[in-house]
Amino acid sequence: MAELKNNRLLRALLRQPVDETPVWIMRQAGRYLPEYRAVREKAGDFRTLCSTPELACEVTLQPLRRFKLDAAILFSDILTIPDAMGLGLYFTEGEGPRFTKPVRTAADVNALTVPDPEVELRYVMDAVRLVRRELDGQVPLIGFAGSPWTLATYMVEGGGSKEFGLVKAMMFDLPKLMHRLLAVLEEAVTAYLNAQVAAGAQALMLFDTWGGVLTPRDYRVFSLEYMERIVRGLTREHEGRRVPVILFTKNGGQWLEAMAGSGCDALGVDWTTDLYDARARVGHSVSLQGNMDPSMLYASDERLREEIGSVLDSYGRGSGHVFNLGHGIHPHVNPDKVAVMVDAVHELSRPYHQN
Amino acid sequence: MAELKNNRLLRALLRQPVDETPVWIMRQAGRYLPEYRAVREKAGDFRTLCSTPELACEVTLQPLRRFKLDAAILFSDILTIPDAMGLGLYFTEGEGPRFTKPVRTAADVNALTVPDPEVELRYVMDAVRLVRRELDGQVPLIGFAGSPWTLATYMVEGGGSKEFGLVKAMMFDLPKLMHRLLAVLEEAVTAYLNAQVAAGAQALMLFDTWGGVLTPRDYRVFSLEYMERIVRGLTREHEGRRVPVILFTKNGGQWLEAMAGSGCDALGVDWTTDLYDARARVGHSVSLQGNMDPSMLYASDERLREEIGSVLDSYGRGSGHVFNLGHGIHPHVNPDKVAVMVDAVHELSRPYHQN
Repeated sequence: MAELKNNRLLRALLRQPVDETPVWIMRQAGRYLPEYRAVREKAGDFRTLCSTPELACEVTLQPLRRFKLDAAILFSDILTIPDAMGLGLYFTEGEGPRFTKPVRTAADVNALTVPDPEVELRYVMDAVRLVRRELDGQVPLIGFAGSPWTLATYMVEGGGSKEFGLVKAMMFDLPKLMHRLLAVLEEAVTAYLNAQVAAGAQALMLFDTWGGVLTPRDYRVFSLEYMERIVRGLTREHEGRRVPVILFTKNGGQWLEAMAGSGCDALGVDWTTDLYDARARVGHSVSLQGNMDPSMLYASDERLREEIGSVLDSYGRGSGHVFNLGHGIHPHVNPDKVAVMVDAVHELSRPYHQN
Repeated sequence: MAELKNNRLLRALLRQPVDETPVWIMRQAGRYLPEYRAVREKAGDFRTLCSTPELACEVTLQPLRRFKLDAAILFSDILTIPDAMGLGLYFTEGEGPRFTKPVRTAADVNALTVPDPEVELRYVMDAVRLVRRELDGQVPLIGFAGSPWTLATYMVEGGGSKEFGLVKAMMFDLPKLMHRLLAVLEEAVTAYLNAQVAAGAQALMLFDTWGGVLTPRDYRVFSLEYMERIVRGLTREHEGRRVPVILFTKNGGQWLEAMAGSGCDALGVDWTTDLYDARARVGHSVSLQGNMDPSMLYASDERLREEIGSVLDSYGRGSGHVFNLGHGIHPHVNPDKVAVMVDAVHELSRPYHQN
């Protein structure tokens, strides 16, 4: 493997000194880029794009050609695992992902098996290997997965949801069944992330997109607990380097202390929490990743730079901050704004890292 | 006016002793009730239902005939004010409310005038008067309005939104214009709520549905500040009684302390915050309203009662708690579950109010 030329991300995630705050963007390979839309068009559908390593690799690398980003993140989908479990993933226009065979009964849960990452999910590992080779050490590659709770919401509801009525009814009335489902997913996610590390991923992120729809107690019992178990089961050293793990619960700002105790290296933070407060609450235990409002990319360059200054200032001096948006980039953002943002983060962050 | 026979709600909102914890439900007059759907069908469309006092009164009273609720809340819509400002409100199937004339420019903002509640919004005041008469003192009537920020999101976006790109771009780049818009809305909401009190509303609630999409700073400057000004401008004594004011910011759990300092009497709390923690954070300054997960109404009766016990226990002993869901009731809930819930709140809460 080529030597890593830019290790700002890995260093910041481990709270080691850096020269500038590293920056990457959730969904940086995505619809806001015309070159992404062209490849997506060529692929015909989203699933083909995800499951063809050459295409997934191409769109993973696209944002790095435009912007001085400090990390690549594998282009993939959090629903690859339930798909590999045989639930029949498909995508509808406007309605998002759906499953032909949702998980609703004890029999459905008992029938689930843990996919072999190098068999059923081989296309993902091939994409990781290809991206690593193509990156040639330019920046580190982040691998990722959805949290067990988040995957369970899609699997039980049969797709996206607003109310989460079915999955919550299962959680409320059949907690043992829900725990069985989450335990299978925990095992599957752990194997999947470890395989990504073996294939070349240099940092990992767990996306708990829907942990924030739970009560504090249910969050701990049905989401955080399984993320903790995953973190404990992950390969944390590879290629002679620590593999940092980032945990992100959207709308989880109230639970940062609990999340920080999970054994992860960093927490994703959305823009409803001030980084100054977040840092005070989690102390020196973890790094923080975030947290600009994605809609700030609709503002003028001047206002955008001002806000980047505020976000950097809210974290303050020293390492332990990875700049990012507080959620995925919106599809209608002008890519020129992203260039302004990435350059401003590097430029404006230097004083925070000088002695 | 008839004497008030059940004053639990008003007493609990003012932290005065009660025999049982009062309970009402956000959107208690709504689609989950077959008798509501019948009136809605007869009315033809949602706007006619809102703007015909007899129909609005009828659906307001429907849930009280079924359940031992401790309050009525006027059936209406938060967008009556922008509609009265001439923005051309209409409702589309599946997409929700839209405006034919959104507010996008300085000229649009400058053209806005404060509606006279007894002229352009007379149908709302007539509904309040009618409901008060029909209630005959059975329970108090809650009046309500949307917060200025929440109304502004619909007015600028031209309807509902997921990203809030347009309204945030205005806030980021044209903060003075945004403040002008919010100031007009503050004046309109204040006049509207005071007119509701004059017409017979006995408690008031401000719904800040979209304050939770802001950063902590923007929330204070663009949402909370205007709610505070409204609270200061409200009639707080009427018919010889205090008129309590409830503030509810959805996803505002991180900002309860700031909200408690607004001068309101109570805070609505969603289910992502534990009431024990919330009470510890706000001290004796305000009452708390909430906060059961609305999806709990999909659980078994046994589990539902258990959860109601947990919510009551999380608040603990003494007055100052109004039981409610943490958000509006889901349209697919079985009304029988609501009966179980309302009865359980009364039954299970008694020990918390005994000396």
